[in-house]
Amino acid sequence: MPQRLRVSPARFRVSDDPIDQAEVASSIAAPGSGAVVTFVGLVRDYNAGRQVLFLEYEAFAPLAVKSFDRIASEATEKWPSAALAIHHRTGRVRIGEASIAIAAVSPHRADAFAASRYAIERIKQISPIWKHEHFEGGEVWIEGATADLEDEAARRVALERACW
Amino acid sequence: MPQRLRVSPARFRVSDDPIDQAEVASSIAAPGSGAVVTFVGLVRDYNAGRQVLFLEYEAFAPLAVKSFDRIASEATEKWPSAALAIHHRTGRVRIGEASIAIAAVSPHRADAFAASRYAIERIKQISPIWKHEHFEGGEVWIEGATADLEDEAARRVALERACW
Repeated sequence: MPQRLRVSPARFRVSDDPIDQAEVASSIAAPGSGAVVTFVGLVRDYNAGRQVLFLEYEAFAPLAVKSFDRIASEATEKWPSAALAIHHRTGRVRIGEASIAIAAVSPHRADAFAASRYAIERIKQISPIWKHEHFEGGEVWIEGATADLEDEAARRVALERACW
Repeated sequence: MPQRLRVSPARFRVSDDPIDQAEVASSIAAPGSGAVVTFVGLVRDYNAGRQVLFLEYEAFAPLAVKSFDRIASEATEKWPSAALAIHHRTGRVRIGEASIAIAAVSPHRADAFAASRYAIERIKQISPIWKHEHFEGGEVWIEGATADLEDEAARRVALERACW
């Protein structure tokens, strides 16, 4: 009988493949995890008054994965019981599809919520991932480590509020 | 050819059936939903220094479902862009299995996070659901609308903090 190998899913991933939300959480599941908070970012049909056709994400993948690892370490310093897994999709992503999934597990729900929220704000702050929006009548680069200053100010407020 | 009916999954449910996390979120998915935050509560192997064998949840189901509906309305008053779905399991739930799943969708991630967190605290505060813990050497009723006062104080702090 052939031997079957079980490969654990990666905790941090940047890939053109569709995101499997259950796989993200399962990469960090443990018997002591009482709370799992999953954040999924979906491509919206409208943004800033424009009808969106699809998005394209570009990443500098090796450094993006490294940034996820760093963000997870930062979160574990702040909330020691929490562990994070982060998968980001690249390439063309259609309306309603997931561009990112972040899973946070902890014995305590407050830490899982906090770590998950921290991660999405930090990714938008430091990860080398850029969003190319194709809309009715045009296209534009709109997000990533190069996000505008107003967005950055709101992000800092969210990160500095030691909520939950 | 037989006609196939598509039945939308219920937004609010209390049932002995295992929880399907994807189904909870799909009950409120919409093309404008940019953010989905899912909270899943899993049965932990240890609690308060005791090795847990399994849990049993009892609910007064009609009122529990009604309380979920009320909590979702409260959340939508606070965060108008957010919608909630809540499924709670009853009966025997084993280690690692989900007892509850809450999905919050919104065009904006801050509202999805806030609504999801609000919901779990309010459920523990007002929903008629009780947890019977079976552990090595005994059993005890430990949670629900009858939660102890210290827990309740912490919950009020979380609910009153208008985070995110």
